[in-house]
Amino acid sequence: MQTQVAIIGAGPAGLLLSHLLHLNGIESVVLESRSRAEIEATIRAGVLEQGTMDILNQSGVGARMQREGVVHHGIELAFGGRRHRIDLTELTGRSITVYAQNEVIKDLVAARLAVDGKILFEVSDVSLHDLQGKTPSVRYTQLGEPAVLQADFVIGCDGFHGVSRPAIPENPRQDFQRSYPFGWFGILVEAPPSSDELIYAQHQRGFVLVSTRSPTVQRLYFQCDPKDDVDNWSDDRIWSELNTRLACSDGWALKEGRIFQKNIIGMRSFVSTPMQYGRLFLAGDAAHIVPPTGAKGLNLAVSDVRLLASGFEQFYRDGRQDLLAGYTEAALKRVWRAEHFSWWMTSMLHNFADASPFQQQLQRAELDYVVASRAAATALAENYVGMQF
Amino acid sequence: MQTQVAIIGAGPAGLLLSHLLHLNGIESVVLESRSRAEIEATIRAGVLEQGTMDILNQSGVGARMQREGVVHHGIELAFGGRRHRIDLTELTGRSITVYAQNEVIKDLVAARLAVDGKILFEVSDVSLHDLQGKTPSVRYTQLGEPAVLQADFVIGCDGFHGVSRPAIPENPRQDFQRSYPFGWFGILVEAPPSSDELIYAQHQRGFVLVSTRSPTVQRLYFQCDPKDDVDNWSDDRIWSELNTRLACSDGWALKEGRIFQKNIIGMRSFVSTPMQYGRLFLAGDAAHIVPPTGAKGLNLAVSDVRLLASGFEQFYRDGRQDLLAGYTEAALKRVWRAEHFSWWMTSMLHNFADASPFQQQLQRAELDYVVASRAAATALAENYVGMQF
Repeated sequence: MQTQVAIIGAGPAGLLLSHLLHLNGIESVVLESRSRAEIEATIRAGVLEQGTMDILNQSGVGARMQREGVVHHGIELAFGGRRHRIDLTELTGRSITVYAQNEVIKDLVAARLAVDGKILFEVSDVSLHDLQGKTPSVRYTQLGEPAVLQADFVIGCDGFHGVSRPAIPENPRQDFQRSYPFGWFGILVEAPPSSDELIYAQHQRGFVLVSTRSPTVQRLYFQCDPKDDVDNWSDDRIWSELNTRLACSDGWALKEGRIFQKNIIGMRSFVSTPMQYGRLFLAGDAAHIVPPTGAKGLNLAVSDVRLLASGFEQFYRDGRQDLLAGYTEAALKRVWRAEHFSWWMTSMLHNFADASPFQQQLQRAELDYVVASRAAATALAENYVGMQF
Repeated sequence: MQTQVAIIGAGPAGLLLSHLLHLNGIESVVLESRSRAEIEATIRAGVLEQGTMDILNQSGVGARMQREGVVHHGIELAFGGRRHRIDLTELTGRSITVYAQNEVIKDLVAARLAVDGKILFEVSDVSLHDLQGKTPSVRYTQLGEPAVLQADFVIGCDGFHGVSRPAIPENPRQDFQRSYPFGWFGILVEAPPSSDELIYAQHQRGFVLVSTRSPTVQRLYFQCDPKDDVDNWSDDRIWSELNTRLACSDGWALKEGRIFQKNIIGMRSFVSTPMQYGRLFLAGDAAHIVPPTGAKGLNLAVSDVRLLASGFEQFYRDGRQDLLAGYTEAALKRVWRAEHFSWWMTSMLHNFADASPFQQQLQRAELDYVVASRAAATALAENYVGMQF
């Protein structure tokens, strides 16, 4: 099989790139190890920056997001028993939309398949070849049969654990990383929203994020030991822990309900550079990971893809390669901004077991400052809604 | 001897408090371990916030500062071979004045002595007594003779190593601290200013601060090992190191000259609470230390003293103690804001030997952000000129 752009991974990055290439008359094939049902059901991020919404709308896949997504004009920071609102729209003129990542994936899969876009699900044994030449290829197995996909370019959108990044040799590759000594315990709850806006809560027992998936389902997270086991946490223990951490002097309280999913996710900061090697380009989690505190992972993937789509449009239309050649440098500007912001939000809101009393006081001083200073609140808000570059 | 307020230490805190009390008709005696010549010659900080200038002017001791001090409307951040200006006045409407701490001390000593204010120099063996009663006392030795000063209150303005803070028992006292794995190597140089404004430079070999003492003398600092010895640093080695760290693509360069003083200072963050115990109150470095990167030490001392002066005015005029009772809480708001800011400036601008490559990239991302975002630059500027509470 032959195509112009081979895309490894049918996450938001791979699917959106395939869609944008199609709109520019460029052919692509997407290879995905999981089934369609599985990628459409995997619950991940859910906060879309204005720029992410814009590109989905402009490329014609935003209709359901506009109907079902919920625009938020602020978030709340809770600490010291009080809630403080950060008015994103008043401070920045922009807003965010809460719309789950797997819904974005459903919309993109539907759009691709509606025009006979090629997505090969449940492929295995993927390997990349001849990346430094003009005709790279991807070998893979589907339905037990080995196959080869020839392409002009290969795009690695296969996440942190995918095969694409390791296909770049250790020289010139450089990885930057930090892991955090805690994870997030996530639950899905049958209950109406506890709050109209997301609540980011700092407490000496650990961070809590209160968010909503739909009018009848809440998504709650609380800081935990990354090596803990969900079986250690009965529903009663979870509610007790959440209510302790979220205790508020104004009487606000969580709405409880049936917990129907529990999982634990780790926290990592990671950047790999360069994001390209010959005819291979990396996008999204394949090249960089942020802890979820800043809600930046999906949005970074989309901004990578936007750069790549412009680069391929230029290449196939004008035969010029300067946008593609400058991809890593252009992408890393936004990546490092988001890495810093995500690290900062994570540091400010989580409990660090090894923090000295001095550091604990600094953390509180920083929170007090962020909600008291318009400049500091604006710095948080402009990063949260997405910096404009 | 008897007085209303016994003040331990003739630094800016103690002298200014004595002066402000005098203006309110309250009598005080200042005890100082060093000579007048020594305190007037010791070179320390030199950046005065607007609020510090205001209180010196309003209390009638600002005339020489207005003539000889230099108003600065901006500072520069230098990194990556480029200088970036933070326009303090445009961002905050306020400015700073560069006027050396020992000049402030000269002005305050002169003002106190002009009205026969009592400053006892070169006293030793100072100890504090009966702090929980209504008639505390201070025992000391002067000219070989033991003496006792009875007072209504005792104010500890005797710095980090003074006797006042240890006079508060370990219960209820709580100390918060952090030391830094580097110091500042300071030099005085016979040369005209290299820059109209202060330059805070980050470099992989370490931080540099370029500042000015007078039209003919520069004050330069560079990050060093706190256990280093000034004898290890020849003039040539110093200039070579400074020029390497300050290399700028725009051709800007240091003006060199004869180095006539070298010293090394350590870096520490420290807060002790409560700042009061019975009839004892602490002000300035006796209660808190900041690393000098944010230029906050002198200004914090002045804001402590302003609170105390109001408290004593209320006490002696109305017989009420609520301002004095709330002193610790009121002072710590500004103290923790300054501690956080000073830690942040220090972290952002110094080289940490144990920083991972990821942390080094975050540091650069933060600097890039601070000079690119108006919100972030304003957050830096509003802290630098002094937050208004």
